[in-house]
Amino acid sequence: MSRLSLAALLGVAAGLMALGTTRAQEKSPSQPKGGDHAHHFMDCAKACDDCARICEACGAHCTKLVAEGKREHLETARTCQDCATVCAAASAVTARMGPYSDAICQACADVCKRCGDACEKHAADPMMKRCTDECRRCEKACRDMLAHARQAAR
Amino acid sequence: MSRLSLAALLGVAAGLMALGTTRAQEKSPSQPKGGDHAHHFMDCAKACDDCARICEACGAHCTKLVAEGKREHLETARTCQDCATVCAAASAVTARMGPYSDAICQACADVCKRCGDACEKHAADPMMKRCTDECRRCEKACRDMLAHARQAAR
Amino acid sequence: MSRLSLAALLGVAAGLMALGTTRAQEKSPSQPKGGDHAHHFMDCAKACDDCARICEACGAHCTKLVAEGKREHLETARTCQDCATVCAAASAVTARMGPYSDAICQACADVCKRCGDACEKHAADPMMKRCTDECRRCEKACRDMLAHARQAAR
Amino acid sequence: MSRLSLAALLGVAAGLMALGTTRAQEKSPSQPKGGDHAHHFMDCAKACDDCARICEACGAHCTKLVAEGKREHLETARTCQDCATVCAAASAVTARMGPYSDAICQACADVCKRCGDACEKHAADPMMKRCTDECRRCEKACRDMLAHARQAAR
Repeated sequence: MSRLSLAALLGVAAGLMALGTTRAQEKSPSQPKGGDHAHHFMDCAKACDDCARICEACGAHCTKLVAEGKREHLETARTCQDCATVCAAASAVTARMGPYSDAICQACADVCKRCGDACEKHAADPMMKRCTDECRRCEKACRDMLAHARQAAR
Repeated sequence: MSRLSLAALLGVAAGLMALGTTRAQEKSPSQPKGGDHAHHFMDCAKACDDCARICEACGAHCTKLVAEGKREHLETARTCQDCATVCAAASAVTARMGPYSDAICQACADVCKRCGDACEKHAADPMMKRCTDECRRCEKACRDMLAHARQAAR
Repeated sequence: MSRLSLAALLGVAAGLMALGTTRAQEKSPSQPKGGDHAHHFMDCAKACDDCARICEACGAHCTKLVAEGKREHLETARTCQDCATVCAAASAVTARMGPYSDAICQACADVCKRCGDACEKHAADPMMKRCTDECRRCEKACRDMLAHARQAAR
Repeated sequence: MSRLSLAALLGVAAGLMALGTTRAQEKSPSQPKGGDHAHHFMDCAKACDDCARICEACGAHCTKLVAEGKREHLETARTCQDCATVCAAASAVTARMGPYSDAICQACADVCKRCGDACEKHAADPMMKRCTDECRRCEKACRDMLAHARQAAR
């Protein structure tokens, strides 16, 4: 399916979600948006936020290691910083069920895969192990969101 | 205490945290950064992310209400959008234990107070109630972080 | 070329840039980074910032139009908001010549194309005309950046 | 003046700006928003974007210097990263003439002052000189915006 048609379908899904919001909210006031569709977006946004936060922390951790002479951490200092930026953007867009959720989640899944691979090489370090795990979780959440959007659009 | 001296103290605290990182990580590998100081920063960052996410969702919710003719939601459509932006910035800076955590947490506490007050006026709507609650929690987390930084610096 | 190999090549390019930085800076102190490679990144980042800024303004403009009863502007209120978020992320990543510049510029080009198309339908409105133009410029800047990175990697 | 009353006045100013938009746009279609008030916001947003972009580049530059053994650049690697984050948030909020422009511009002016001071110590390096200059410009733009908002509210 092309990105444009997926986008159109996302728009339809968003419309359906909006229609379903009131009743669902009456049933479960603790949910930010009613309906199963909305849950997919908020679950994805939460995974993106969790990953962005750890990536920021891990990037700072790696920068300190570099300053201590462990130059091999320069790569992950840079990948974690970028991954944090992309994850934060994906969180903002999906939390608002934005029309371009597909494009940013595609980029986010891609970036999380690559950052996870880079951090995994240093997985003996607990911080980097944790960052690897969050990158894997966020990659999966973004791919699930994309699959859900495609399925809902059929 | 002036912001500049608080900043200097934050820098000292960050240095102490860095020194304490290795041992703490051996004890609790599930923590992104060792030490009680670091916990304050990550707890604050998490509250900021949670608030940013709900504010994005609530801002989109309010925009839809405005489109349905409920013009009185324009104010919170705008406050939630700004609050989301400031909370996301505060999360990024505190997650990396950044030197300007104080300045952005001060702004974030201020903005969360005001956005929470604006949303509270519509608290019969479950989404706006939830957004109010998250704004209150994030405001408190930012104030706690500032108080902790001041105390640690004595 | 796959994204992963492009990423590897971007890494090589970044390394070369870093090596070339000192001398280039001596020659042109007004440049933030020396070398032609670096210019491509900063030019792209500037176009992304310009587009993000107009998209934020245009999104707010559309939200006001919606509040005045022009419900047909809801679509662009939402596309502009997302486009601003993705452009801002692309600016941050490319300005730091980040390793994931390729992934976020791909998403940014895609999103700018779609937001430009959505805004163009309302091009009689001067703000929306300007937003259309900036989206086109930013899309081109992102595609140029990607093409340059591929060429440099040969 | 308290922040809350300043915020109220910003809201009034925003309303006046909205009223003035149509005519001003007819006169100058190249402006993103009509009226002198709106110009102050967009000028501020542009200065924030310019500063954010150079701070990202300078932060990456400093991280590379640290990796080359110049550990004294760790401080500015960190200040530039935070400054970029806060400036980007200030750009987004002011570009949409957001109700919390005052709070984020206050934080941004503060952070730019401190980051400019930190970079100035290394002003023999052309990149750090340029970053210093942009921080000074952005600090001034934020203070001008705040002064304008106060004056407009009288």
